[in-house]
Amino acid sequence: MADECAFVKGTELPLKRPRQEEGEKSAGMEVTNHSNGCSNNEKESPYISSVLPGWFSEISPLWPGEAHSLKVEKILFQGKSDYQNVMVFQSSTYGKVLVLDGVIQLTERDECAYQEMITHLPLCSIPNPKKVLVIGGGDGGVLREVSRHSSVEQIDICEIDKMVVEVAKQFFPDVAVGYEDPRVNLHIGDGVAFLKNVPAGIYDAVIVDSSDPIGPAQELFEKPFFETIARALRPGGVVSTQAESIWLHMHIIEEIVANCRQIFKGSVNYAWTTVPTYPSGMIGFMLCSTEGPAVDFKNPINPIDDESEPKTLAPLKFYNSEIHQASFCLPSFAKRVIESKGK
Amino acid sequence: MADECAFVKGTELPLKRPRQEEGEKSAGMEVTNHSNGCSNNEKESPYISSVLPGWFSEISPLWPGEAHSLKVEKILFQGKSDYQNVMVFQSSTYGKVLVLDGVIQLTERDECAYQEMITHLPLCSIPNPKKVLVIGGGDGGVLREVSRHSSVEQIDICEIDKMVVEVAKQFFPDVAVGYEDPRVNLHIGDGVAFLKNVPAGIYDAVIVDSSDPIGPAQELFEKPFFETIARALRPGGVVSTQAESIWLHMHIIEEIVANCRQIFKGSVNYAWTTVPTYPSGMIGFMLCSTEGPAVDFKNPINPIDDESEPKTLAPLKFYNSEIHQASFCLPSFAKRVIESKGK
Repeated sequence: MADECAFVKGTELPLKRPRQEEGEKSAGMEVTNHSNGCSNNEKESPYISSVLPGWFSEISPLWPGEAHSLKVEKILFQGKSDYQNVMVFQSSTYGKVLVLDGVIQLTERDECAYQEMITHLPLCSIPNPKKVLVIGGGDGGVLREVSRHSSVEQIDICEIDKMVVEVAKQFFPDVAVGYEDPRVNLHIGDGVAFLKNVPAGIYDAVIVDSSDPIGPAQELFEKPFFETIARALRPGGVVSTQAESIWLHMHIIEEIVANCRQIFKGSVNYAWTTVPTYPSGMIGFMLCSTEGPAVDFKNPINPIDDESEPKTLAPLKFYNSEIHQASFCLPSFAKRVIESKGK
Repeated sequence: MADECAFVKGTELPLKRPRQEEGEKSAGMEVTNHSNGCSNNEKESPYISSVLPGWFSEISPLWPGEAHSLKVEKILFQGKSDYQNVMVFQSSTYGKVLVLDGVIQLTERDECAYQEMITHLPLCSIPNPKKVLVIGGGDGGVLREVSRHSSVEQIDICEIDKMVVEVAKQFFPDVAVGYEDPRVNLHIGDGVAFLKNVPAGIYDAVIVDSSDPIGPAQELFEKPFFETIARALRPGGVVSTQAESIWLHMHIIEEIVANCRQIFKGSVNYAWTTVPTYPSGMIGFMLCSTEGPAVDFKNPINPIDDESEPKTLAPLKFYNSEIHQASFCLPSFAKRVIESKGK
């Protein structure tokens, strides 16, 4: 970690990684504009926090040949947890931005789309959800959305990385507000292990708000993990998982769909939403249910009522029943693959 | 145009603009990797063809603070027409890319989404379209899509920039294939003037495939232009226009919607689609109809039948009746503005 700059292998973009101090805030550190004198360190992870002079650029083998960049006003935090690099910066037009291992997790400007859709797609599809488990989602945004449902009695969250929770509470109060709900129980630990230890059939819904399938979230895209979710859900219970982009990751999605069709004997569906700061400008979700009372995800039966929402929260920005239904409609190139897979 | 490099005003991204030879191909020119010795020329248009060392970056005051970049394998063409800078490059993961004044118009990988949606949203919403006018769309992709409709007898296109047509025919044969349809009549000229001179009420549909409202396409977003379209349409005729992104351009969209509500007395609707290489990863369309037989855009009545499509074309990749209906469902933040505007 001695060198400040690195060339990411396989790209020609000069990247600058600001000096890191493990677990320590470096609030107020400016992004400087010099980019000379960088050494070429091929051992670097491609997920370093990479900053072009004055800009943050998101480069990854998961979306080769393209990069989205945001102009940086100020780096507010950098740290290295036991699991990943954590960075927060003030962007010039997307508000504050949370970055894990060089990949944008949320921006204040567009986080509503992801958090609202991954949460309300499952919870508005079943009557009176009472017990909900969130895996990942340490920023608290999914918790905020779950807490809009007055039927919910218990919200468990298992996040592996304590630093993500702390950083969210400090820099993203409108997201981490989810933690203020008294129904929330935070567990810091491995989601896979947590799920193995919960009693069978106790949750109405599980929401897996994970990062990409490289790094700490890799297991969350594999079959054994889906099996532990199915076990933890009641009959006719639902799961919603982050499931990448149909433009970029059809090969990953094909495998996830095939796995889900083997494990979830109720229904298996793919939905998507626009998120400008995610690669390809969109992200998808797997929506599945276990054997039991039928769940028709495409026709929500449990609409969110403005009246019942906690008054402490800002109103929904993105989700409504129409966009819920629309999110399951797929472009033909994706529909052909997803609908044929595992059938 | 003497200096090869420029810093775009208001950004700190060093941009490299390869040497331009007006109206002349420079096929085979490699992007070089040196980026030193650039002068700071504040008079530069922000729409120059800008290439980071080895990458193309799209920077514009229409989406400040963010930039999407594609890795460049080879620049295939650069020229300056009477209207704009025209560039074609081979990208490493999105196929060939057409760039006008520094803004991506299409990539081979994702052009299907835009071309299919802007065309079939209007044409599948009316019975037996016969006469269709395309304004802009010089690449031929919209023509390709119009030609899938067997009811169509006449396809007029008015493109202002001959160079766009020529470049498309040379570098994008799967897009420019639209010109091979014998029903197509190409007019090189100003779309506004063209529309003023056509007899009133002759078209069933007008499709406005324009670039952004800065530069040659500016007039195509203004009220007088919409009036000439309404005049050229038969009663109950339809128009589809490129209408920017709800994430980035709500202020532009508000104005367009308000104008359209004054001019189109049938129906006025906003739809959108995912396009990864457009800013914010999506783009919207205005779908309007003139007074006369009612048009319910949200429920298509003229589906494209695989049987009736020309066998010379590759099948549809993106459009289907479900995604047609879904495209009119808006996130709440956009729905509130668009539905209230001008009512």
